[in-house]
Amino acid sequence: MRVQIIAHTPEPEQVVAAAARLCYSQAGAEELLERLSEEEVDRLLSRLEESGHLSPFEHVSFTFSIEGVSRALSHQLVRHRIASYSQQSQRYVSQKQFGFVTPPSVKGEALEIFKGQMEALQEAYNKLVALGVPKEDARYLLPNATETKLVATFNCRSLYNFFELRCCQRAQWEIRQLASKMLSEVKKIAPRLFQKAGPTCVAKNYCREGEHGCGRLQRRST
Amino acid sequence: MRVQIIAHTPEPEQVVAAAARLCYSQAGAEELLERLSEEEVDRLLSRLEESGHLSPFEHVSFTFSIEGVSRALSHQLVRHRIASYSQQSQRYVSQKQFGFVTPPSVKGEALEIFKGQMEALQEAYNKLVALGVPKEDARYLLPNATETKLVATFNCRSLYNFFELRCCQRAQWEIRQLASKMLSEVKKIAPRLFQKAGPTCVAKNYCREGEHGCGRLQRRST
Amino acid sequence: MRVQIIAHTPEPEQVVAAAARLCYSQAGAEELLERLSEEEVDRLLSRLEESGHLSPFEHVSFTFSIEGVSRALSHQLVRHRIASYSQQSQRYVSQKQFGFVTPPSVKGEALEIFKGQMEALQEAYNKLVALGVPKEDARYLLPNATETKLVATFNCRSLYNFFELRCCQRAQWEIRQLASKMLSEVKKIAPRLFQKAGPTCVAKNYCREGEHGCGRLQRRST
Amino acid sequence: MRVQIIAHTPEPEQVVAAAARLCYSQAGAEELLERLSEEEVDRLLSRLEESGHLSPFEHVSFTFSIEGVSRALSHQLVRHRIASYSQQSQRYVSQKQFGFVTPPSVKGEALEIFKGQMEALQEAYNKLVALGVPKEDARYLLPNATETKLVATFNCRSLYNFFELRCCQRAQWEIRQLASKMLSEVKKIAPRLFQKAGPTCVAKNYCREGEHGCGRLQRRST
Repeated sequence: MRVQIIAHTPEPEQVVAAAARLCYSQAGAEELLERLSEEEVDRLLSRLEESGHLSPFEHVSFTFSIEGVSRALSHQLVRHRIASYSQQSQRYVSQKQFGFVTPPSVKGEALEIFKGQMEALQEAYNKLVALGVPKEDARYLLPNATETKLVATFNCRSLYNFFELRCCQRAQWEIRQLASKMLSEVKKIAPRLFQKAGPTCVAKNYCREGEHGCGRLQRRST
Repeated sequence: MRVQIIAHTPEPEQVVAAAARLCYSQAGAEELLERLSEEEVDRLLSRLEESGHLSPFEHVSFTFSIEGVSRALSHQLVRHRIASYSQQSQRYVSQKQFGFVTPPSVKGEALEIFKGQMEALQEAYNKLVALGVPKEDARYLLPNATETKLVATFNCRSLYNFFELRCCQRAQWEIRQLASKMLSEVKKIAPRLFQKAGPTCVAKNYCREGEHGCGRLQRRST
Repeated sequence: MRVQIIAHTPEPEQVVAAAARLCYSQAGAEELLERLSEEEVDRLLSRLEESGHLSPFEHVSFTFSIEGVSRALSHQLVRHRIASYSQQSQRYVSQKQFGFVTPPSVKGEALEIFKGQMEALQEAYNKLVALGVPKEDARYLLPNATETKLVATFNCRSLYNFFELRCCQRAQWEIRQLASKMLSEVKKIAPRLFQKAGPTCVAKNYCREGEHGCGRLQRRST
Repeated sequence: MRVQIIAHTPEPEQVVAAAARLCYSQAGAEELLERLSEEEVDRLLSRLEESGHLSPFEHVSFTFSIEGVSRALSHQLVRHRIASYSQQSQRYVSQKQFGFVTPPSVKGEALEIFKGQMEALQEAYNKLVALGVPKEDARYLLPNATETKLVATFNCRSLYNFFELRCCQRAQWEIRQLASKMLSEVKKIAPRLFQKAGPTCVAKNYCREGEHGCGRLQRRST
């Protein structure tokens, strides 16, 4: 899995702080364009966070290129509707040498079986295409494990929700891995903005999953 | 593929017409609840359609149960973000006897290969589960062809967009089949509302696809 | 202020429960259409609530007619983007006898001033229209207090969010009144679905507003 | 009215083209980050436009500061739900010297009346606040004409829709003015991306308004 930020709103923390300032003061555009000090930004962002006033966080967005993830993952990912996606098409792009993702739990004998199937599917796909089956139909053979590539854009508020749900220990392992990489990438660019992002046990000291939770919070509090 | 409407806003045409009436008149709630005549409904809906004032069509929604479609289809379907989905989970529900969808272009020798792979995958999936691989990981083997089930809710405006894109001859065959069944189901309930729904060549006499189009419009106009 | 439900998904609790069941079981459409017992519904809804799996609640929606509210309120209301609105147009509908909303804090001398202004504005509006100013421009005179009418449709999940934010003591008084009326209306139709809806201090025993909170939670816990 | 872009995705045309390229080719992240030539960008954008494949245009967004517009305008603006807004609060920010927008059709005697009302409202607002009425209630007096400030973020696809509807001759004059300024600002940054943006009569040679249209298209075609 490879995750890179290929574009983002420049100076995201300044932009969110400027929007916050506009809501609560007489400040006009001139002042909005002035650079705020780090302390001023921190004070404004804290005010938003404490009052749950999250809409100003929507003004900044991050565009990720995501490679080497499975179609099982991408099917889950695109369920996040407040985001934009472009995905490599299996209808138009040949899968004559498709890569695949192997779950870590698939080991030993299971791994032999798994790999055998991947080879057999590759061969079958190629034969179908050779027999004149259109790519868009031959792909019906391809497994959930098949690697895919996406470009995905989220605004910061939608990322908060994504990290809350998908960095959780109870999330499916592959999307948790993706979420964790995305979080580490955005933190490089905007550490203040994402300092509390993550599962609620880390960020807000409670567990969304209730009795279905992983127990981390309880262990920590004892 | 089986498509059924399991719930919908009652009297959808009355509801859209009532909302339209509110926008343009002094009418209050009392009047909104009065039944309008068929002519009155038609007049109000025509006014909305002609002026492109589509928001009143959002007040009514339709909930479909969809069975016997492939995961290739469901991955496309959930890209329509102005809609709500519940899908049978491959993480939680065992796929020990998964059904699969066979594309019509897969025939003869290709069909033999295809069926062989489906059997091999079923066997491999079962072995992995027997070897202790969690269902959520064993499913990485499962093909795009695997059958899935969904409940999907669209409002009427979002359905217009869905039918425009997916009833088009250029849409992928399986989702076009789904769209066509959904359209025929909603027409039974609200024929006036969906009388012009469908691809733009039928509804609006132009082709979205331009020179990539299927040629139906040109053939018709000569 | 008058609030009425003019349409809603029939049997909303059955529909959400059916969608939940589809996600976690082999049940097909046939079974989905069977009526579930009250206990079964309760068990399925509890499972969704506990695990924070809220998407099945999107399959049902409620359409409200709202009258006698101010434009100050409607400007706030339409900021809830996961909903659909039709509003009486000030561009097309004459305001020659506009109603207005008086905030409860406006009393005594302030009330005399307030009423005086409303009369003066009505007179000025009528004069402008008589002088040939189009309605859509004469309305620039009209105050935030001016009464308006809307039809608004929310799905159940979006309503949860609306009630959480707007039933809070810290919300602006008029929209809190609206939220409270809407909540009491939906409870008549679907008591189980909305049994925990409301501000987080009631529903989840914590306060979103932190130190800016109203203090109700602290008082209750001592 | 003052409109400025305070932030935007850097190199927006490169980003959309890169997303397009990913969909249709084997290109990976490395290649995505390469700069494309102007011809290559143009070729990729044309392909998207011709096939109506608009989702890649969602990856770039523009953040505007908007000042000196009326609350009549802002109430319309925020109805565009695929966008993010932060607005100066009339609950928290004092309006002791509110500015106002005067419609161009308000002239001569009408203008005298209009101005007189604005002064009277200012005085009444100040008195109410002096009498202890909270700002959030005193503002019920304030007219639609009252000036407000916003920060608004749209992605490029949502802007296309906004310009299509709001640059139209039939749109209300103030929001048409805003849309026109926004369009001229984004064209400075990304001329290729917005070369066809605007009302459908300009961009697509048909009129959305049908017989309610302004007649520009007919005049041009004779």
